[in-house]
Amino acid sequence: MDREKALRFLKEQRKLMNYMNSTLSVVSWDTEVMAPEEAIDYRSEVIGYLSSNYHQLTTDYRIEQALGVLLSEEDKFNLYEQRLIEEFYNIYYKNKKIPESLQKELSMATAISNKSWKRAKEKGDYELFKPHLARVIDLLKQQAVCVGYEGHIYNAFLDNFEKGMTVEELDEIFADLKEGLVKLLAELKEAKQLSFRRPKGPFSKESQSQLALYILNQMGYRIHEAGRLDETEHPFTAFLGPKDIRITTHYYENSIEGALFSTIHEGGHAIYDQNMPHDWAEYGVNEAPSMGLHESQSRFYENIIGRSLPFWRAYFPKLQEFMPSYQSVSLEEFYQMINEVSPSLIRTEADEITYSLHIIIRYEIEKLMVSGEVGIDELPMIWNQKYKEYLGVEPKNDAEGLMQDVHWAEGMIGYFPSYALGNLYGAQFYHQMKKELPQLKDEIESGNLSIVFEWLKQNVHSYGKVYTPGQLVEHVTKEPLNPKYFLDYLREKYLNLYHL
Amino acid sequence: MDREKALRFLKEQRKLMNYMNSTLSVVSWDTEVMAPEEAIDYRSEVIGYLSSNYHQLTTDYRIEQALGVLLSEEDKFNLYEQRLIEEFYNIYYKNKKIPESLQKELSMATAISNKSWKRAKEKGDYELFKPHLARVIDLLKQQAVCVGYEGHIYNAFLDNFEKGMTVEELDEIFADLKEGLVKLLAELKEAKQLSFRRPKGPFSKESQSQLALYILNQMGYRIHEAGRLDETEHPFTAFLGPKDIRITTHYYENSIEGALFSTIHEGGHAIYDQNMPHDWAEYGVNEAPSMGLHESQSRFYENIIGRSLPFWRAYFPKLQEFMPSYQSVSLEEFYQMINEVSPSLIRTEADEITYSLHIIIRYEIEKLMVSGEVGIDELPMIWNQKYKEYLGVEPKNDAEGLMQDVHWAEGMIGYFPSYALGNLYGAQFYHQMKKELPQLKDEIESGNLSIVFEWLKQNVHSYGKVYTPGQLVEHVTKEPLNPKYFLDYLREKYLNLYHL
Repeated sequence: MDREKALRFLKEQRKLMNYMNSTLSVVSWDTEVMAPEEAIDYRSEVIGYLSSNYHQLTTDYRIEQALGVLLSEEDKFNLYEQRLIEEFYNIYYKNKKIPESLQKELSMATAISNKSWKRAKEKGDYELFKPHLARVIDLLKQQAVCVGYEGHIYNAFLDNFEKGMTVEELDEIFADLKEGLVKLLAELKEAKQLSFRRPKGPFSKESQSQLALYILNQMGYRIHEAGRLDETEHPFTAFLGPKDIRITTHYYENSIEGALFSTIHEGGHAIYDQNMPHDWAEYGVNEAPSMGLHESQSRFYENIIGRSLPFWRAYFPKLQEFMPSYQSVSLEEFYQMINEVSPSLIRTEADEITYSLHIIIRYEIEKLMVSGEVGIDELPMIWNQKYKEYLGVEPKNDAEGLMQDVHWAEGMIGYFPSYALGNLYGAQFYHQMKKELPQLKDEIESGNLSIVFEWLKQNVHSYGKVYTPGQLVEHVTKEPLNPKYFLDYLREKYLNLYHL
Repeated sequence: MDREKALRFLKEQRKLMNYMNSTLSVVSWDTEVMAPEEAIDYRSEVIGYLSSNYHQLTTDYRIEQALGVLLSEEDKFNLYEQRLIEEFYNIYYKNKKIPESLQKELSMATAISNKSWKRAKEKGDYELFKPHLARVIDLLKQQAVCVGYEGHIYNAFLDNFEKGMTVEELDEIFADLKEGLVKLLAELKEAKQLSFRRPKGPFSKESQSQLALYILNQMGYRIHEAGRLDETEHPFTAFLGPKDIRITTHYYENSIEGALFSTIHEGGHAIYDQNMPHDWAEYGVNEAPSMGLHESQSRFYENIIGRSLPFWRAYFPKLQEFMPSYQSVSLEEFYQMINEVSPSLIRTEADEITYSLHIIIRYEIEKLMVSGEVGIDELPMIWNQKYKEYLGVEPKNDAEGLMQDVHWAEGMIGYFPSYALGNLYGAQFYHQMKKELPQLKDEIESGNLSIVFEWLKQNVHSYGKVYTPGQLVEHVTKEPLNPKYFLDYLREKYLNLYHL
C-alpha cells in the first residue's frame, strides 16, 4: 500500500462507517418516534447487529496497514487528511485496547441498568438501581484502565465527549463559574421577586407546532426540504443523513414554554448539523468537535437568542397571533416570565443561572464516583447535601434527586460537563459576534435572524471537526475558553431584568 | 463441520439475513413515508450499501461448506430443516451463477430506467423510456441464461415470484380464465346498466382514516400494538419486523372508495404477515411461499369479503356514521356502487372481473418481450391492440397504456401473473372455507369477522413458507389450483347483482 492507496482506503472506510451510522440513526429514530410498542424487542436485536457491523468497520485490519503507511510518511498532510488519520488512529487503537468481552459486558450491563433505572425511578427506590449502577461504574473504570489516561481517571471519561479537556482544566473553569453564579444568585435574592400570571391553556398541539415551525424557519433550519418536527416523550435531534436532520419536541397542553424552548434548542442543534462541511464527509469532519460545542449551539439559540428581549420584540406579536390568550400579556411581562430565576430540583427545568450549578454538582459527584472516593451507598446523601448547599433545595426522594437523569444508567458518565461547557462556548462566541456585528441587536429586533445564522455558519458550523474544541474557540474568539463571558452575559442580563 | 454445526450455521446466517432485511425495510419505509425530499439521494447510497451487505450474507463461502455437509447426509430432516437447506441452496447457487458485474449493471440499469419511466410517463413519451426498457430486458435475459431454466425462457422470470409455476401450466390456467371472463363480460353487457349518484365529498382524511382503522381492527389486524397506517402516493404493506407490519393508503378528498378498499387490501397483506410462523424465523419460513399467495390474501379481503353484501350488512351503518352523506344511500345501492363493472384502461382501477384481463394482457406481452418474438418498438401497438380486443378500450397515449405500471421500469418482469393467481388462490380458498364453515355468511353478517381470520390463520397464514405454493393449495383445498372456483364465484355474484 502506498500513501495514495492508504488515504483512499481510509476515506472509503469512513464512507462505509457513515452509511452504517446513518442506518443506525434511521432505525433508532424510527424506534423512538414511529415504531409500535411490540416492535421494540426485535428492534433492539437489529440495532445490536448493526452496531456490531459498525464496530467491525472500525476494527478492520486494513486500517492498521493504512495507518502504518501513513504514519511513516514524512510528507505533509492537509488539515482534512490529518483529521482523517488522527480519527482512525484514535478509534482503531481505542477499540483494539478494549477487549471484546468487556465491550459486550458493558453493553449488556447498560441495557440492564437502563431498565432497572426506569423501574427504580418510578418507585423512587434507589436500592433497585444501585447494584446495576455499581456494575456500570466498575466496567467503565475497567475500560478507562484499558484505554489508558494521564492524571485523574475521570480524564478518560471526559475524553469520550470533550476531546482534550482535562479535570485539571475543568476544575479551574468550574470553580470560577460556581463562584460567579453563587454570587449572582445571592444578589438576585435581594431583588423584589417578580410574580407572573401565566395564560392558562389549553394550547392545541396544532397551534404550538405551527408556532414552532414558524420560528424554526426564521432561525434558518431548512425543515421542509431537509428536516422534520415530530413529537416524543423527550425532545432530541437526529442526524439521519447530511440532508436529513430531524428534531422532536414534547407538547404540554397547559403551557407553551416547554415545547417552544425545546424546539428552539433542538433547532440550534439541527442548524449546526445542516451546515457542517458535508462535502468532506469522507474525511469524517462533518460533525461537531465535541458534545460541548454541539450544546453551545442549541443553548445559544435557546437562551442567548430565544430568551432575549430583541428576539421577542420581533416575534412576540406573532406568538400572540398563534396563541390569542397571550394578548393580555405585555412584551415586558413575557420577557420576565421566560427568564424567571428560581433554584429548583430538576436540571432540565432549571433557569439559565442555576442550570450550570446542576451540572457542577454532577461533575463533582462523578469525579468522586469514578475515583472511588465515595461509595455507591453514599451517593444520595452527597447529592442531597450538594443541592442544599449550592441551590438551597432538597429532594424529597431519589427520583427527583440523583435518579432524575438517564445518563448514568446509560453509562454516559463524563457527559454532563458538556452542557455547562456549551453555555460557556456560546457566551464567548456571542461576545465575539457582538464585537464583529455592531448592528446585531437592531437586526434581531427587526426579525433578521439570518445575521446570526450566517455568522455562526461561517465561523463555527462550516468548520465541523476540522479543529479540536480548543482550537475552534481560539480560532473564533482569539483566546482560550474563559467563563468570564458567560458570567458577564448573565450579570448584565439579569441585574437589568431585576432592575438592580 | 458436522450436521449439527452446519444446521446451526445456516440458522445463524438466516438470522443475520433477517436482521439485514428488517433494516432495509425500515430504511425503505422511512424513505417512502417520512424522509424529507433532499434526503433521497444519500438514502439511495445507504440502501445500496445495505443491499450489498445483504448480498454478502447470501454468498458467504461457509454456506457452501454447510450445504456440502448437509446434502451428503443420509439422515432425514424435518420440514423446517428441509426448507432451510433448500432456500440456502437456491439463493446461494443463484447468486453464485450471476456474475457480480451483471448484478451491478442490472441495479444501475433499473435505477436509470425507473427515473426515465417517471419522466416518460409524465410526458406521455415512450421514446424516452424505450432504450432503458430495452436495456433492462436484455440484462434480465442475460440473468435468466446465467441462472438457467427449462422450457420457455419466461419460466426463469416466473421463478423469481411464483416458485414452481411454469409457462406451460400458466398458459392453460389463463386460457380458461380468459375464456370465462370474456363470456361473463358479454353476458353482463346484455343486462340493464346500473347508474349511481355517488355522495360527493369532501371527505376529511380524519374521518376516512377513522373508518379505515375501525375496519382494520374488525379484520383482526393488530394495528395499535404492532402496526401503523400512514399516507403515501401509492398504498403498500411493509414488513419491518415480526411485530412491526405497517400499511399505507392514499386519501382522495372526493371519494372514499380508493382509501377504503386499499386499506382493506393492505390489511389483508398485513394480517398474513402478522400471523406467519415467526417463531421459526431462523428457518426462513415466516414469509409467503409466493407473491401470488400474498396477493391472494389481500385480494380476498378486498373483494371476496370487502365487496360482499354480508360484510356491508354488518358495517354499512358504521360507514354511514363516519360518512353522514352516505345516509342517503341504501345498502343495496352501495353494494352495487362498489361492484360496478366497466372495462377501463388502468389496471389499478379495474373491477373484479376485468382486473384479471389486464393481467393476462401483460403476461402475454411479457412472454413475447423476453422470447424476442416482439421488438421493443412494437410494444405500444401490441398493447393497444390487446386492450381493444380483450376490453374494448383503447389508450389515447402510452402513459395510460403500456407505461402505466412501474413494474417493468423496476425490472419486475414476471410479477404481474401473481395478481391474477392471487384471485384464483383466494376464490379456491373461499370455496373450501364455505364448505368447512356453513355458518360463514351469517357470522360475517353479524359482524364476526374473526371466523374468517381464524380459518385463514389456521389453514394458510400459520404455514408461512413451509409448503410450496402448489403444496399449500393442495393441502388446504385437497386439489391443485383450478380457475373454475374464481369463475364460479364471479358468475354467481355478478349475475345475481345484475339480476340476470
